[in-house]
Amino acid sequence: LTCAELSNGSITPAVGASNSGCESSKESSRSSTPVLDTDRTDRLRDKMRRRTESGDHWFSLEFFPPRTASGAVNLISRFDRMGSGGPLFIDVTWHPAGDPGSDKETSSMMIASTAVNYCGLESILHLTCCNQTKEKITGYLSKAKRLGLKNIMALRGDPMGADWEEEEAGFNYATDLVKHIRCEFDDYFDICVAGYPTGHPEAESYDEDLRHLKEKVDAGADFIITQLFFRADTFLKFVRDCRAIGITCPILPGIFPIQGYQSLRQLVKLSKLEVPEEIMQVIEPIKDNDAAIRNYGIEQAVGMCRVLLESGEVPGLHFYTLNREVATMEVLRQLGLWIEDPRRTLPWAVSAHPKRKVEDVRPIFWASRPKSYIYRTQDWDDFPNGRWGNSSSPAFGELNDYYLFYLKSKSSKDALLKMWGEELTSEQSVYEVFTSYITAQPNVAGHKVMCLPWNDDPLAPETNLLKDELDKVNRRGVLTINSQPSINGKPSSDPIVGWGPPGGYVFQKAYLEFFTSSENVTALLKVLKKYEPRVNYHIVNVHGQNTTNAHDMQPNAVTWGIFPGREIVQPTVVDPVSFLYWKDEAFALWIEQWAKLYEDESPSRMIIKYIHDNYFLVNLVDNDFPLDNCLWQVIDDMFELLDNPPEEQPAEQTAEQPNDEQSDKEQPGK
Amino acid sequence: LTCAELSNGSITPAVGASNSGCESSKESSRSSTPVLDTDRTDRLRDKMRRRTESGDHWFSLEFFPPRTASGAVNLISRFDRMGSGGPLFIDVTWHPAGDPGSDKETSSMMIASTAVNYCGLESILHLTCCNQTKEKITGYLSKAKRLGLKNIMALRGDPMGADWEEEEAGFNYATDLVKHIRCEFDDYFDICVAGYPTGHPEAESYDEDLRHLKEKVDAGADFIITQLFFRADTFLKFVRDCRAIGITCPILPGIFPIQGYQSLRQLVKLSKLEVPEEIMQVIEPIKDNDAAIRNYGIEQAVGMCRVLLESGEVPGLHFYTLNREVATMEVLRQLGLWIEDPRRTLPWAVSAHPKRKVEDVRPIFWASRPKSYIYRTQDWDDFPNGRWGNSSSPAFGELNDYYLFYLKSKSSKDALLKMWGEELTSEQSVYEVFTSYITAQPNVAGHKVMCLPWNDDPLAPETNLLKDELDKVNRRGVLTINSQPSINGKPSSDPIVGWGPPGGYVFQKAYLEFFTSSENVTALLKVLKKYEPRVNYHIVNVHGQNTTNAHDMQPNAVTWGIFPGREIVQPTVVDPVSFLYWKDEAFALWIEQWAKLYEDESPSRMIIKYIHDNYFLVNLVDNDFPLDNCLWQVIDDMFELLDNPPEEQPAEQTAEQPNDEQSDKEQPGK
Repeated sequence: LTCAELSNGSITPAVGASNSGCESSKESSRSSTPVLDTDRTDRLRDKMRRRTESGDHWFSLEFFPPRTASGAVNLISRFDRMGSGGPLFIDVTWHPAGDPGSDKETSSMMIASTAVNYCGLESILHLTCCNQTKEKITGYLSKAKRLGLKNIMALRGDPMGADWEEEEAGFNYATDLVKHIRCEFDDYFDICVAGYPTGHPEAESYDEDLRHLKEKVDAGADFIITQLFFRADTFLKFVRDCRAIGITCPILPGIFPIQGYQSLRQLVKLSKLEVPEEIMQVIEPIKDNDAAIRNYGIEQAVGMCRVLLESGEVPGLHFYTLNREVATMEVLRQLGLWIEDPRRTLPWAVSAHPKRKVEDVRPIFWASRPKSYIYRTQDWDDFPNGRWGNSSSPAFGELNDYYLFYLKSKSSKDALLKMWGEELTSEQSVYEVFTSYITAQPNVAGHKVMCLPWNDDPLAPETNLLKDELDKVNRRGVLTINSQPSINGKPSSDPIVGWGPPGGYVFQKAYLEFFTSSENVTALLKVLKKYEPRVNYHIVNVHGQNTTNAHDMQPNAVTWGIFPGREIVQPTVVDPVSFLYWKDEAFALWIEQWAKLYEDESPSRMIIKYIHDNYFLVNLVDNDFPLDNCLWQVIDDMFELLDNPPEEQPAEQTAEQPNDEQSDKEQPGK
Repeated sequence: LTCAELSNGSITPAVGASNSGCESSKESSRSSTPVLDTDRTDRLRDKMRRRTESGDHWFSLEFFPPRTASGAVNLISRFDRMGSGGPLFIDVTWHPAGDPGSDKETSSMMIASTAVNYCGLESILHLTCCNQTKEKITGYLSKAKRLGLKNIMALRGDPMGADWEEEEAGFNYATDLVKHIRCEFDDYFDICVAGYPTGHPEAESYDEDLRHLKEKVDAGADFIITQLFFRADTFLKFVRDCRAIGITCPILPGIFPIQGYQSLRQLVKLSKLEVPEEIMQVIEPIKDNDAAIRNYGIEQAVGMCRVLLESGEVPGLHFYTLNREVATMEVLRQLGLWIEDPRRTLPWAVSAHPKRKVEDVRPIFWASRPKSYIYRTQDWDDFPNGRWGNSSSPAFGELNDYYLFYLKSKSSKDALLKMWGEELTSEQSVYEVFTSYITAQPNVAGHKVMCLPWNDDPLAPETNLLKDELDKVNRRGVLTINSQPSINGKPSSDPIVGWGPPGGYVFQKAYLEFFTSSENVTALLKVLKKYEPRVNYHIVNVHGQNTTNAHDMQPNAVTWGIFPGREIVQPTVVDPVSFLYWKDEAFALWIEQWAKLYEDESPSRMIIKYIHDNYFLVNLVDNDFPLDNCLWQVIDDMFELLDNPPEEQPAEQTAEQPNDEQSDKEQPGK
């Protein structure tokens, strides 16, 4: 019945659902995160409306799925880089020939899911319906919903084969798909449809095509993205014509910066568009000069976009990126739309999955490996909100095979060997790799160390503040993998350590995490007695042998923020329970990423294996955040104790605790 | 079957239950409060064990239920005063003749419940069993459990009437009651039993009585409190004899500081004890000099307690207070056991109800009326932990009849009239009452104003810091009822503003809450525009007309603390939802406590009624806690605007917003 009503063009039920949805989300906002509520709870169409109302122009980016697994790794890195410019959303095209709904790393479905879940990008998944059964389509939509996708671009798609005919009960038009989505999923998805500024190539006429577009919108579509075009006037006329027949939803122009002669020809052929004479006249003479064409493409796109934005008819620009960065980013920079906003919502990247929207606490351990953290917690029913201790699902996913996709380095084996050493001769040569990474100086072989197994990227600006101290301790085998300085109330707008809404203050306790030998740990434990209760520590080896002076269940908040009119947010904690899950991962990375670069039984592999088997993973927190960070002093004291061990008593000496304590007492007399 | 096993003296099942209980409480400690976990989750016997192990002597206090409702109000005040000295627990005797298990304000049950729930005191409820059916006893115990009581003193009680005989199936001895409690309630209750250092008066012999005591302990009692005695040796011999026959649980000496000749004689008669000759020789000559006897009683008790504590056999002292304060407090002070610890667990008094133990967030509005807050939230299923927003039960109890018990002032009508004015002549005379209260100066009639309807006690030390500013604004009709200064990271041990475990830092946003006229509010709203978004406000009148610049659901944390090895605690919030519940109470107090002092239709009553009907309740938060509190400047600006209104434009003037804004703009040009 509801379906029948919808088929009649009435979307009242869906609108009703939307209203009640809003109310319940308002109700539940009492338990949602205090930071940036609206941004996190709004759906795409609401974000668009708010940006349109405020006159704040936005942009969005279209990508197609990659062909290979390593192409997927590269595309995800591109998502992160292009995500930093602040797109309102990205969309991922649907490739019917490429098993688009499968679990393959390269499928449209998985790429869109990765963008949402791991890159935190609001994403639209394309979906084409022709030659598909309703069951199949419903299956895709259910899967998309399950994966946290909230937006669908509903398309007819190109009929495959010459013998295609309209089917009575099937999907013949995108309108059928829009109706089907509203019928089966009510108001869950935001729906986008395609507009053709020069009319669809198969439409009887431009007017006939406009009527089809009106039908799609009436069936429940929320906004329109247009096919590419080459003249601003083409689009502006199209918008006027749409408005004239009663289409009121947002219409986003599809911008195609020309990036090369071949790709332009191919796209024009596929989309059955004509390139205007004035453009061909410029391009033909320079068709073999890629750089010249790209520069022209940028100039042409910037000019057209300026006209569009100044028209007042265009709230945002949609870019056909062809999976490339340079041209689109340059156009956006010139338009002033590319804003690498240093302000972060939280100190770590927020996932865009609707289930995770309340999440505002995470353990510090995965700070450099946020995607791994998201993967390992993907099965949680609830995400901690307010306090980590409130989490009722502390179980972390296993380090299984699929996970190895994320255990993989983005660099090739060759590049890794250059950075981390073709041949290791001693533990010292491992220390040197860490030092090279921290100082950004070339290693003995002359190569810069751009990453470590625990850090995919060069040192963060915040960590860079600690560079000198880190350098000093890594040289001596305190192999640091994570650290943060103490912060006593810096403005939330601080470009390096700030996060959260304006007008607030952020705080941190100093943190240091490192691998080190058991000899060092023995000295460290003696030294740490002098720092009770100021310093909390957890020390564990690969076998799980665990020493701590902290409560065995109680997390320690190490990053927090105070904001106007909000409750306090404490997004990063040192949690004793999850540290033991992190320990498995941190130790596994020695073997999976580093040791396996070398031949089995080779000395190099044996050295990494030795460290893996014998070193301890240590974390230290300096609780006294208003004072100067004392953790460097702790490490200095440890080295001092190792360099100048207290005089040993020849008689009655054992390795036991009482004697250790006695040694301790003698220390001041040294 | 379990009962049969228990009757055989085996308490294994109960111990088993205890173990599994411990494990689950450890499990759930992840979600419990980060402040002082053990103190809040431990049961009484565990607290005793920890104090005993640490050699930290404690004391406890015994009270009997009052006869009248006003006696109950006084006793509850006494609980608060004597609770501030840090008793490990209090106990409330069971008066079989006084309807002890009823809902009357004076019943043993309700007094013990009030001590636990409203005064936050660990409490033991006495229970006597003779002449009672099992059903009746089970009913009492179920009720005690429902009210949050966790500890029972199991007693036989005195047989009533001469014809009492042992009943086969009934309760003949305290042992039967102990078994019954363990049988019906497993390990839920901690059970205390009575010991008789000179033997129970009805026992066949001292040894026979010791054997009875052993039976009570074997049946499941956790510790022993003794009958009073007059010589330390009596008690120490008793302990040795108990240990000799295998009684291993704690044995607490019952201390009776002699407070008067009559009360001593009465008690001795009831308990069938003999007063030693050396004491009678001192007392008889001074029996008509109460002060002398009390001084002697204090000296005698202090001397005996010193011997007991030095023996090493006594972990804590139990005092028979006779519901009086002076003598017991003086003994405790001389022993160094009375410790008015300025350190608070949280900024507000914590209830001892087991269900509320996770509670660590409250709205600031009830800061001066914590018992009212507890009463109005007593039906909540969950208490907010970590974040106020997590509370799923925001409904507050009604201001109903029973509640009026707490709406009542502790002072008499006469005293109130002296403080608040026999006759009011204007709103100004109301302002003067507020000013007298704040400055602690006598009012026009020469009486000190010790309380206001919203503040039962004189100004808190913290509020006293704001005295000069408060004085100034109250004079002009900004009638303040709640305020706190801003605090930017003071040590948690700070004697005035500190709370929570040592080594931490506490913070506050400045807060000010007051009643004021609608004229003032109109000016205030104009002024507040200049303080966006630094200052959040909520302004409401008795009819619920509500204005705010804050999120309508989002609470604002105004007190928080950072501690070593813990998550952050934010115990006080300004919550927009509960503010509307508080508003009802705050306005009702004008009428219930103040207006009703005067004749119906009298001018005095009409003045209070006018304020009630026309004034607004305003709260202000200065979010910028590291800067100097700007709220006084806000009020100054308001007065400035009232004193020097902007020049009015004769033409086109309306009362509407646009014009208001224009007036605002003119202000700088004044």
